[in-house]
Amino acid sequence: MRLAAPGKTLIDFGFRRAHGAEAGLMGARASWIAGFDGTATVLAGRRFGIPLSGTMAHALVQAFGDETAAFEAFARSRPDNVTLLIDTYDTLAAARKVAALAPRLAAAGVRVAAVRLDSGDLVALSRGVRAILDEAGQGGIRIIASGGLDEDDLAAFAAAGAPIDGYGLGTAMTTSSDVPSLDCVYKLEEFDGRPRRKRSTGKATWPGRKQVWRRFAADGAMQGDTVGLDGEAPAGAPLLAPVMRGGRRLAPSPPLAQARAHAAAQLAALPEPLRRLDPGHPYPVAISPALRALAAEFDAASQGPAS
Amino acid sequence: MRLAAPGKTLIDFGFRRAHGAEAGLMGARASWIAGFDGTATVLAGRRFGIPLSGTMAHALVQAFGDETAAFEAFARSRPDNVTLLIDTYDTLAAARKVAALAPRLAAAGVRVAAVRLDSGDLVALSRGVRAILDEAGQGGIRIIASGGLDEDDLAAFAAAGAPIDGYGLGTAMTTSSDVPSLDCVYKLEEFDGRPRRKRSTGKATWPGRKQVWRRFAADGAMQGDTVGLDGEAPAGAPLLAPVMRGGRRLAPSPPLAQARAHAAAQLAALPEPLRRLDPGHPYPVAISPALRALAAEFDAASQGPAS
Repeated sequence: MRLAAPGKTLIDFGFRRAHGAEAGLMGARASWIAGFDGTATVLAGRRFGIPLSGTMAHALVQAFGDETAAFEAFARSRPDNVTLLIDTYDTLAAARKVAALAPRLAAAGVRVAAVRLDSGDLVALSRGVRAILDEAGQGGIRIIASGGLDEDDLAAFAAAGAPIDGYGLGTAMTTSSDVPSLDCVYKLEEFDGRPRRKRSTGKATWPGRKQVWRRFAADGAMQGDTVGLDGEAPAGAPLLAPVMRGGRRLAPSPPLAQARAHAAAQLAALPEPLRRLDPGHPYPVAISPALRALAAEFDAASQGPAS
Repeated sequence: MRLAAPGKTLIDFGFRRAHGAEAGLMGARASWIAGFDGTATVLAGRRFGIPLSGTMAHALVQAFGDETAAFEAFARSRPDNVTLLIDTYDTLAAARKVAALAPRLAAAGVRVAAVRLDSGDLVALSRGVRAILDEAGQGGIRIIASGGLDEDDLAAFAAAGAPIDGYGLGTAMTTSSDVPSLDCVYKLEEFDGRPRRKRSTGKATWPGRKQVWRRFAADGAMQGDTVGLDGEAPAGAPLLAPVMRGGRRLAPSPPLAQARAHAAAQLAALPEPLRRLDPGHPYPVAISPALRALAAEFDAASQGPAS
């Protein structure tokens, strides 16, 4: 999502769809590390220092019945960073109400920062809303979109040049709906100083204590990795470092800001084809000759005891 | 999964793939309510009283190197409900080792309850393992299968008549990978005694305070529902009941056993087509004439203030 919407404001709206309260908090934290700009989860703001951002609910507009009255009451009661939700009834009609209301609020010292669209054809509606606001001299009111959006939607809106300034992202971010689980397990590769290998059909592993080396181009872009045995010295920088020893962490977690800066630097170092949403751009990963030799050695030696 | 594998033992293996520790515990609890027979998550066993069940890890077999030595050490150290994992190297070869080992363990008072297959062609392997065990007079050793299985796999194994007695189910159960989120929100339908309605494109709601009535056949099977206004009295039993009033729960949660029995009774009352995995079997849900009339009345009355 961060890569699909360069320059756009991205807000975590994922709490209500997360797999429990813990997952919702961790989702807010992870999206902040990945480069989001804020979260609508108040506790995540307090606990992690993530900037809070959010808007009104459809229910507030419905409770008032009259949209302008709802917008004005909301803006006056919470005058900082006012974002008005304008799709409860008719989005373009509501945009006109905002255009008419904004000067009145401005006279009272309240600035409307943004409007939010949560349904319908967001490309067409954002253009219509932008035109209405601009014609009314409200070019400073930003347009935020939400409503079950995923990274493909963001890329499509960018390609269409939709005048959307930011996104509220929930379900597709917090549940990673297209890849709902990480197929990641631990495997024993060395025991008592000797290599081990799993040879189950389709699940074979490389034996031994390993390291991964990554090579970078002069401009900092990643070029390729080598997986080899610990103690080898192929080209590249080693990626694996000890974080625990004797059951204890060797260092505290880095501050969140540092993790966020690291993520941004790593994303920037990805080769351009790997920054796209479409698959099919391989990244070169080589297995070192020494590791291949150890696997063959292990297989030959274990025919006896293992069969 | 429960409906796709009638009569089979189903064990929750989902913790390691859940979206956090809380989701893992809640997944264990939910699968028990849905009719699973146990969980591999020890804390869920302690906290909710769910029977614990699990097996050894591939790493244990790899640490020993010799499979028979690993099986024997595991069985002797944990002699209750011994399940041996036999796919680390060669599943059929390992089944022969179990067949040879079981009588020796039995002489020491240790019974091998089951073997587990975690990879490969599970239909073919279960048949091969069953034959090896039966020929060795070990017809009492059950076969458990696992390895990224979902409800479609369970239905396919049942259709193939694979001699599998139970399943360890993880990722596809705890992450509900094909439906990773529930598209469920609250909407304001009444405020201050007056009906409310959201009319956003594709997101319109029915106004007013409602009830749902369900009709049952003489054999207890569900026949259809009517959504109407609270205070109507169409045929059927009302499904909605107050659980909070004045900010307080009206009753404690039912005991877990009662929730599980309720789930089983509700699954049994589903019309047969709705118990299948394939979609396309509609269930009749009617909107009452009074509710339709209220919606039309609301739309007519709100053209003024809402537009």
